[in-house]
Amino acid sequence: MSGFGVLAGGGVVWRDGDDAVDLTGLGDELAQPSLDALLSLGRDGWRQAVDAARAHDGPRLRGPALRLPFTVADYVDFYSSLGHATNMGRMFRPGAEPLHPNWRHLPVGYHGRAGTVVVSGTDVRRPRGQLHGADGGNPEYAPTRRLDVELELGFVVGVPSTPGEPVPADRFVDHVFGIVLVNDWSARDIQAWEYVPLGPFLGKSFQTSISAWVTPIALLDERRVPAPEQEPPVLPYLADGRDFALDIDLETGLNGAVVSRSNARSLYWTMPQQLAHATSNGASLRTGDLMATGTISGDTRGSEGSLIELTRNGAEPLQLPDGSERRFLEDGDEVVLRGRAGAIELGEVRGRVLPAN
Amino acid sequence: MSGFGVLAGGGVVWRDGDDAVDLTGLGDELAQPSLDALLSLGRDGWRQAVDAARAHDGPRLRGPALRLPFTVADYVDFYSSLGHATNMGRMFRPGAEPLHPNWRHLPVGYHGRAGTVVVSGTDVRRPRGQLHGADGGNPEYAPTRRLDVELELGFVVGVPSTPGEPVPADRFVDHVFGIVLVNDWSARDIQAWEYVPLGPFLGKSFQTSISAWVTPIALLDERRVPAPEQEPPVLPYLADGRDFALDIDLETGLNGAVVSRSNARSLYWTMPQQLAHATSNGASLRTGDLMATGTISGDTRGSEGSLIELTRNGAEPLQLPDGSERRFLEDGDEVVLRGRAGAIELGEVRGRVLPAN
Repeated sequence: MSGFGVLAGGGVVWRDGDDAVDLTGLGDELAQPSLDALLSLGRDGWRQAVDAARAHDGPRLRGPALRLPFTVADYVDFYSSLGHATNMGRMFRPGAEPLHPNWRHLPVGYHGRAGTVVVSGTDVRRPRGQLHGADGGNPEYAPTRRLDVELELGFVVGVPSTPGEPVPADRFVDHVFGIVLVNDWSARDIQAWEYVPLGPFLGKSFQTSISAWVTPIALLDERRVPAPEQEPPVLPYLADGRDFALDIDLETGLNGAVVSRSNARSLYWTMPQQLAHATSNGASLRTGDLMATGTISGDTRGSEGSLIELTRNGAEPLQLPDGSERRFLEDGDEVVLRGRAGAIELGEVRGRVLPAN
Repeated sequence: MSGFGVLAGGGVVWRDGDDAVDLTGLGDELAQPSLDALLSLGRDGWRQAVDAARAHDGPRLRGPALRLPFTVADYVDFYSSLGHATNMGRMFRPGAEPLHPNWRHLPVGYHGRAGTVVVSGTDVRRPRGQLHGADGGNPEYAPTRRLDVELELGFVVGVPSTPGEPVPADRFVDHVFGIVLVNDWSARDIQAWEYVPLGPFLGKSFQTSISAWVTPIALLDERRVPAPEQEPPVLPYLADGRDFALDIDLETGLNGAVVSRSNARSLYWTMPQQLAHATSNGASLRTGDLMATGTISGDTRGSEGSLIELTRNGAEPLQLPDGSERRFLEDGDEVVLRGRAGAIELGEVRGRVLPAN
């Protein structure tokens, strides 16, 4: 894995391969309980930090305990994968056009709960919530029966922006420090009942897990590839950033078996487009803003980034190597998301399902 | 006005009437750039702070410059007013049942952008955004033509909660420090095009204004009244907190004229119910979480908390005393929200519309 992390007891560490290196002796920005100070430095400071980390011959740490690497300011979740949006539309609006009219014109997104973003390795408690009654009967308050994963990438804002001033796509690299892997845990039954008309709330807000390692954008230059063509053409404020798809192989592991493989380059909307859209109304950025892509799904079977897609809403259960079947997550299940950009491995996102309280 | 605020240069102040009193000499929690330390003290500490503030004979300040009084952790916006939800449903789904099926079963809500919550007195820049093309044509990126206000109350969380553990309604007063007035500025045309299926995003995220004074909940004990009856009965996890409607008179001023009057006691869902619902999936609270009621509208003409309702989506313009008409806000307009709970006046929320950049 490659990137910066933070020791559970505080102090920034760097990892590029098997071992982590303690950087706390290298400067004030690195002897901190989070990456926040490093994030706010900007491009020159980020480059110097990477150079210094690579050159540093500090104590090696194998598998150190790590904490949430930065203070999450606002958390935005997009819906940027054509495969995912198409799969969801086909399942829930069969016979209709799978994409809503706005989908190809703007990266649809919403705000999630920043306060429940946690670091990889944190167990997830099966949430209770209000569920629609069967056959239109009265709702009930019960543990979710449709707990799911969402495999996503997220980018982490370092440099704030000025209120009232949109950040164009070509300024992405001036504001964004790095990326993380994201598991946007979802309770499909809670979400299905609550989300009209104001969107997801408690179906998502119980927990979102991110990797402990933040991989600097600058390390991914060689993995930048052209994004898929957009049709119809988008408005000028969204037209840039099409050279910023990321060739990152992704996989979802469930109890040790790989159940899904995809690649982030398939995303219809790139991260610079997401940033340009999120600030197009003048909303300002803060250090620590986290913006995630939404579930990443390819267009073939086995490339879906969620169980609801992989199992066609439970109609086609996954067969696991131990002989069991899964429609949705069961108590005790362990999910591990992984990403690899050539020689650069992203931090994994690991989490085990605990039974409801 | 009554409550705690923070001087623009730092330092907690108390106000109960015309003059503010500087409290910075009274202790470490009060010589701060925000109320955050005070918020985290809990009920005993809050009571002592109010008592000390009332007894303190410090320097008087008339009309001091104030800053955002606390660090907003997560911002949640509900949709709790029966009048508002009914008005919106009638306008946008004429002939259909105005309320969605979930509305009487749970307080519908969503996360907004915490990073663009600002203090009263901050101007609001007319946002640009993607607007649906006329007659189904291509969308455009242009300044909103439907800038609106939303008159709301918000409560401010002081004491955090434990992840995985819901906070029942009867623990509301252990976690919640006080209330503010909220203007949830809205760009109706941006919102209308973007919000399917994940809810409001850029139509709201450009700015949310709150009062500079946070009024402690404890000061409002005499204004607690029974909430309106709920039919059908709600699930047990939402059944408490019905003795916690707040008898607070509210008004919206536009360029010096009062254009709307209502009372917060009409809200269908109380604040303790909102808190219980927001944590019912185990999502934890942080110091500084802000949860707003959603637009508060009564059931009579002139009690609506937004222009889109007051003008019936622009069909019945407001006649202002200067002879002009308003469907939505124009550049230069000044909005002032006010609230009064008997002898207790809440901090106002004032803002003027600046032209688009």
